[in-house]
Amino acid sequence: MIMQNAQYLSDDQVKRIHEASLEILRDTGLLVRNEKARIRFAEHGCEVNHETEVVTFPADLVEKCVEMTPPTFTICGRDPAHDFTLPCAEPRVATASSAPDMVDPVSGETRRATSHDIARLGHLVNEMDGIDVFSISVLADDAPEGQFNLSRFYPALKNCSKPVRTSVLDVEECEQILKLGETIAGSREDYFKHQFITFGYCAVVSPLTMDYDSTDMLMYFAENDITAYGTIAPVGGAGTPLTLVGTLALINAEWLATCVLTQISKAGRPMLYNFLPVFTDMRDGSYATGAIEIGIMNSAICQMARFYDVPSAGYLGLTNSKTSDAQAGYEKGMSPILGTMSGVNYIVMGGLLDALMSLDLAQVAIDNEIALMAKRAACGMEFSEENLALDEIKKAGHGGMYIGNPETLKRMTKTCFLPELADRTIREVWEMQGSRDVHARALDQVRFILTQPNKYAISAETDAKIKAAFPGIVAGDSVPPEGWIAPEQTRGRRQSRRHAKAS
Amino acid sequence: MIMQNAQYLSDDQVKRIHEASLEILRDTGLLVRNEKARIRFAEHGCEVNHETEVVTFPADLVEKCVEMTPPTFTICGRDPAHDFTLPCAEPRVATASSAPDMVDPVSGETRRATSHDIARLGHLVNEMDGIDVFSISVLADDAPEGQFNLSRFYPALKNCSKPVRTSVLDVEECEQILKLGETIAGSREDYFKHQFITFGYCAVVSPLTMDYDSTDMLMYFAENDITAYGTIAPVGGAGTPLTLVGTLALINAEWLATCVLTQISKAGRPMLYNFLPVFTDMRDGSYATGAIEIGIMNSAICQMARFYDVPSAGYLGLTNSKTSDAQAGYEKGMSPILGTMSGVNYIVMGGLLDALMSLDLAQVAIDNEIALMAKRAACGMEFSEENLALDEIKKAGHGGMYIGNPETLKRMTKTCFLPELADRTIREVWEMQGSRDVHARALDQVRFILTQPNKYAISAETDAKIKAAFPGIVAGDSVPPEGWIAPEQTRGRRQSRRHAKAS
Repeated sequence: MIMQNAQYLSDDQVKRIHEASLEILRDTGLLVRNEKARIRFAEHGCEVNHETEVVTFPADLVEKCVEMTPPTFTICGRDPAHDFTLPCAEPRVATASSAPDMVDPVSGETRRATSHDIARLGHLVNEMDGIDVFSISVLADDAPEGQFNLSRFYPALKNCSKPVRTSVLDVEECEQILKLGETIAGSREDYFKHQFITFGYCAVVSPLTMDYDSTDMLMYFAENDITAYGTIAPVGGAGTPLTLVGTLALINAEWLATCVLTQISKAGRPMLYNFLPVFTDMRDGSYATGAIEIGIMNSAICQMARFYDVPSAGYLGLTNSKTSDAQAGYEKGMSPILGTMSGVNYIVMGGLLDALMSLDLAQVAIDNEIALMAKRAACGMEFSEENLALDEIKKAGHGGMYIGNPETLKRMTKTCFLPELADRTIREVWEMQGSRDVHARALDQVRFILTQPNKYAISAETDAKIKAAFPGIVAGDSVPPEGWIAPEQTRGRRQSRRHAKAS
Repeated sequence: MIMQNAQYLSDDQVKRIHEASLEILRDTGLLVRNEKARIRFAEHGCEVNHETEVVTFPADLVEKCVEMTPPTFTICGRDPAHDFTLPCAEPRVATASSAPDMVDPVSGETRRATSHDIARLGHLVNEMDGIDVFSISVLADDAPEGQFNLSRFYPALKNCSKPVRTSVLDVEECEQILKLGETIAGSREDYFKHQFITFGYCAVVSPLTMDYDSTDMLMYFAENDITAYGTIAPVGGAGTPLTLVGTLALINAEWLATCVLTQISKAGRPMLYNFLPVFTDMRDGSYATGAIEIGIMNSAICQMARFYDVPSAGYLGLTNSKTSDAQAGYEKGMSPILGTMSGVNYIVMGGLLDALMSLDLAQVAIDNEIALMAKRAACGMEFSEENLALDEIKKAGHGGMYIGNPETLKRMTKTCFLPELADRTIREVWEMQGSRDVHARALDQVRFILTQPNKYAISAETDAKIKAAFPGIVAGDSVPPEGWIAPEQTRGRRQSRRHAKAS
């Protein structure tokens, strides 16, 4: 055990939340718009009113389905070296998705995002050691008709060898993306041996509604053993009570309903206990993604996930700020640490500004450092008799210096996380270097990476097959924005990316 | 119990740290430069070598002195409404100290700080609901000879009715400040009934050295029942081993030594378990105040403090950034939340940039919001049957709206922290308002406050007495910088400062 997690709820309170959710499922249930789902619920013992479309749930079915859900969830990348199975010792981190807009890296203006931005993002994420999953962060405004999400998955998969994830609209689109995966893998069989695409879906619309399409996708993914996880994203105070525990009881009921539908569609399908619980700012109705209450909710979500023995996940590190200022910094930094200290297994956090509206490439690099700091925090004190260093302490004695000790030299790059972007110089040096803020340095790092060839891109041969299979598909290459040349390499880049990982 | 704190160390590991510290104290001990202290240590059973000035400690004396240390620490303000006794349900927060420089609020340039800046800071801190203590954040470059810290305490106490804290050089200076306190209180007796000044001292110089002056002050404070607490501020990797647990064992030994000296000077004197453990960035020797390892160390410090049943405290929320950028934001936001989730009782954090080198008034206002977010996190889920809101959930049913519910209206300002500075508007509104960052908005807030009269200033009558008692003393008034006029009141200021407090 590296850490005893922070917990807001006592064991009894966790049980009470569970019981409250069972009561909601029994007495109120869910409105289920999808007839196939209603029939399936009815077949497994739910009470279904096909006229009102309301489904209510017996507690024993719910608890049986929770039991059937495995305790782990595996996410794979195009390169199997990036595969991982949750829970890990450290939280795993994804970029956030799916913003319509992009902060243009040259002009700094916000504009609609395109497939070119996705290609660059994929290229960039390869090099971000703190980011484990490329959840495709923006939409592609240049998508040809009939290729809406293909125009996102293709540049992402082409450029990024880490796990790639986003949603699809319907079964037809999913089949198109699977065909892309098969083309890359060589065959459908090879693809299904190592699914390097993870699909997302919006599992429930709070309060207590399963819509037609998402519910269709949930069943389709489960029936076909397709790697996918859902997100429940309530608007607290609008679609839930304006209390944290009331919201938790409600969204937990909603998750349990998706758990039932998943398990009765295909027993043993892995799930994440995954939420984006944003409360409304009641002064003006704004969607307060930067609020600390998301972190607090996430902590309780971690406890419920442990109660159900399912990996916990959540959107954290979002900000309402439109620009990469101190607000973006503290809003992005605080909730991921709160989640980390609460034992969250999977954090969706990187790159976005302005709630979920725009992505900034430099912010991806900044958030990468935040992610690495959170991962360092997850590694903890590294207690051992060797690390207690009593002999060294006695030898150094009073007023002695440790800096030249062999033990110190050995630990130089191991004890502390060594950031690449955070400025730690003295003021005079910083001023001499142009008094630049972290965003400027981050943009340098991004420019450095994106003006190098992408060594993780798929082969030309595979790419030719894709181009042949999907006529009219977007170009998909990571090409530096016009006018960009590589800056000099920034201090320390590539030198010491990480604190030694927890075992 | 609001929260079960995050803990990196098991109970056995905490005990092992304690034992390791006892072993260090027994085998290596401390170099004690102050003869009076050495004699006192010898009188109470320590082994003292007056030639080498080394003092070693028997374990039973150390443990007896820990036992004698009370579990609480009271900090008072000029207005008793601001008094508090640690530990409280939420962490209490102080501004950080004592920077030599100031970001000029008009020019934005960094310059030497003066007593005028301290007066403004005192005025500002009154209005910062998240900040409980004004630890005098800067030095006074305009101090007349013989009034170095008087030129800091006077403008601070004159303008701020909250607890005021900083260090003094020696006993003589302390007597000068006490005389100031007595003049404000009316008499020495009245002052000592309600000590609204808290003194600080640097308890130990790591590794394992008690210097002359600080040790003198420690004994003087204890003997005279003067409210004071020490800080141990090691430079990790230079003055301590480059491991977290080794550093912890060492600084814990140092704290135990100060505990012994305090308790044998005056049994039962309250103490804080208070540290600023900064590790060196081994790439260039920089003093990495913004590093996440300070937060991790603080978490372990909270555990040791609970083991000794003494309130925990620490410097958190510092940054190496020279400017209020995203780095300042995440470095300032992450460690205070880490500490909060670990149960820290007292956080010294507000206002500084550039390690401990400069203070920015707008940053005080930003850090106030960070402090309020941390305090909100300390309040947790607020579990109750009423907050579970089951009736409301059943009534709203599927797809219903909670926004107009009487319960929602009742909780509008209670459930979530409502920030004043964080932007939550939509992009179009933000652009219409000038695309300003949080620092610009914070500076507006500061300007608004500092261009109003300070209603918490001491009376003209008392001030006349002070002026008479200390010839040549600085002016001490909070006067707006030249050219400042009040901006329009910013949205929400004064409207809803706080989330409802934890009981």
